[in-house]
Amino acid sequence: MASDGNTVGAIVESKECYLSAYAVQGVPTSDHIKFRTVALPISADSIPEGHVAVKVLLISVDPYLRTRMTGLAEGLNFPRFELNEVLKEYGIERVIASRNDKYNEGDIVMNPYLPVAEYCVIPPDLLTTIDPASSSFSLPEYLSCLGVPGFTAWAGIEVLGDLKAGSNVFISAAAGGVGMFAGQLAKLKGCRVIGSTGSDEKVKLIKEELGYDDGFNYHKETDFDVALTKYFPDGIDLYFDNVGGKMLEAVLNHVNHRARILLCGMVSQYNKVWTERDGVRNLLNAVGKEVRLEGFMLYSHLHRLPDFARDMETYKKQGKIKSKHTLRHGIESFVEGFGSLFSSSNMGKVIVQVGS
Amino acid sequence: MASDGNTVGAIVESKECYLSAYAVQGVPTSDHIKFRTVALPISADSIPEGHVAVKVLLISVDPYLRTRMTGLAEGLNFPRFELNEVLKEYGIERVIASRNDKYNEGDIVMNPYLPVAEYCVIPPDLLTTIDPASSSFSLPEYLSCLGVPGFTAWAGIEVLGDLKAGSNVFISAAAGGVGMFAGQLAKLKGCRVIGSTGSDEKVKLIKEELGYDDGFNYHKETDFDVALTKYFPDGIDLYFDNVGGKMLEAVLNHVNHRARILLCGMVSQYNKVWTERDGVRNLLNAVGKEVRLEGFMLYSHLHRLPDFARDMETYKKQGKIKSKHTLRHGIESFVEGFGSLFSSSNMGKVIVQVGS
Repeated sequence: MASDGNTVGAIVESKECYLSAYAVQGVPTSDHIKFRTVALPISADSIPEGHVAVKVLLISVDPYLRTRMTGLAEGLNFPRFELNEVLKEYGIERVIASRNDKYNEGDIVMNPYLPVAEYCVIPPDLLTTIDPASSSFSLPEYLSCLGVPGFTAWAGIEVLGDLKAGSNVFISAAAGGVGMFAGQLAKLKGCRVIGSTGSDEKVKLIKEELGYDDGFNYHKETDFDVALTKYFPDGIDLYFDNVGGKMLEAVLNHVNHRARILLCGMVSQYNKVWTERDGVRNLLNAVGKEVRLEGFMLYSHLHRLPDFARDMETYKKQGKIKSKHTLRHGIESFVEGFGSLFSSSNMGKVIVQVGS
Repeated sequence: MASDGNTVGAIVESKECYLSAYAVQGVPTSDHIKFRTVALPISADSIPEGHVAVKVLLISVDPYLRTRMTGLAEGLNFPRFELNEVLKEYGIERVIASRNDKYNEGDIVMNPYLPVAEYCVIPPDLLTTIDPASSSFSLPEYLSCLGVPGFTAWAGIEVLGDLKAGSNVFISAAAGGVGMFAGQLAKLKGCRVIGSTGSDEKVKLIKEELGYDDGFNYHKETDFDVALTKYFPDGIDLYFDNVGGKMLEAVLNHVNHRARILLCGMVSQYNKVWTERDGVRNLLNAVGKEVRLEGFMLYSHLHRLPDFARDMETYKKQGKIKSKHTLRHGIESFVEGFGSLFSSSNMGKVIVQVGS
């Protein structure tokens, strides 16, 4: 590979990650997600006007991406990846060549639809320059606390949650990228917050480090109805749903009058075709209890981005919010990192460190 | 029985309808709903201070009552009937004796929790006096257009629906008590309105008399996905759900972005225990499409009753709203009338005429 410092006329060998086969069901593996090396011209005289060439530093690994790999037009309503298309993810990059006055070599930038690759040439449309040197956030925290997971949690809790101090809040996937912030933000509102997660280690994390009032390992407390009876003697006022399926159904047996259910994601269901997904049989409870179930996507809340960033910066400076992440190294670790989202083996936000 | 006109010292024989056994599953029949005759003192000197004795004229027959007959604490969250308790329903009565200054013999009154009986002695707490002689509504219309079904439809469409002219609206149980008004109110907002119902006769009713744009018989067009593809080429913006189950699931495959689903009732599911109800497997679509599913109950909207009554009176005078009902005769027809709610054999609002 070319060194970063000298890109004039340079061509780099860049490994990129592409979808080789649709995974209709099951966790996608190296049978579906493959790598290839391409020779990429990255000198300023070879890239298109207005574009920048970047070396990829960090790539976010998000559960929602699963729904783009089925080849089917259903799920989260994102466009499917075409076969042989390079995967796109949120990422942080360093500019190594620029044909755009707004970006200089050395700039650190973010991009929500970055090709999952070691290097790439990208249009500047969705780039944001960041300045980690003068920030209270580390680079990985730009992808967690200050990134999509943090913003998603904030939009749910702050914009849609209608929370009052003392409300009983339940967060599933409570130690995951979104869940860990949703729980902490609900605590900052004075709520009683309980989380479910997939290992004892993560229960310990949410209770001892993230400030949850309590939590349980759903692999051990497998009768969710019994668990929710135990952890919510006064019922549930808000459920921040990251998993769907059986847990959502169990929650509907424990909701209080006028409870809200924020449908953020359904990671327990992504690896099944829809006809095989767990059916929720007790939606009638939502009628009698006047429950609102509301799906939401981040793009509808982009106008609140400045409010979110201001809140998170304040909380961070005050030491009121913590961020956990698992770094995996090298672009090929993307496959295993992605799989870890579905096996309870991830801890906090999963990030692939591609370059340094 | 005593004549209505002469009640001093009178005792009437009154047939009353009570729950003799819980019906956990299936349509309740005469095995569960029975009648007994009681001797009821109805003279002004024998009834309690503040109370009135009434002769029952009309009794509303509502699907929600089913959920009070299971003996289980789930469903619509209404208190269950105790065994041997007289059923309670919305009804219209004539005062035949009064120990209350606000009510005189001959007054016509309404009561949301009227004992299902020929005569009864009731406290005045929830009584409303009505004056059908000076009204544009007939007596049965007080139980349909101007009653619970009309108000429920109005609350859904007017308060929660967020409808715009041109929106694509789907109403299930479209010729039923609530559905017929929901459809007409949506039409008055300039929407395109399609209904599903259980017979060709009712499809004809909603299209030719109630002004629906189109409709289908779900017993004939049994692949709901095919039917909704056909009737909603531009997707569904609002679904007013009276049936739940498979139809709700099918709708979730045809919702537009930010569609609303008003969870009003689930008549297709009331005769099953919750673990046997049809599971909705595609709630993930609600995330990607940012759909709001919202359960609602009428008691939360009582402060809007004057607005509702004003609207309905205006529409009625302008000939813009029609009301259909099926009258059944004699208190013992309550059992069959109630059963008809679950067999597609009802037409419009079902009402039992007890006395004249």
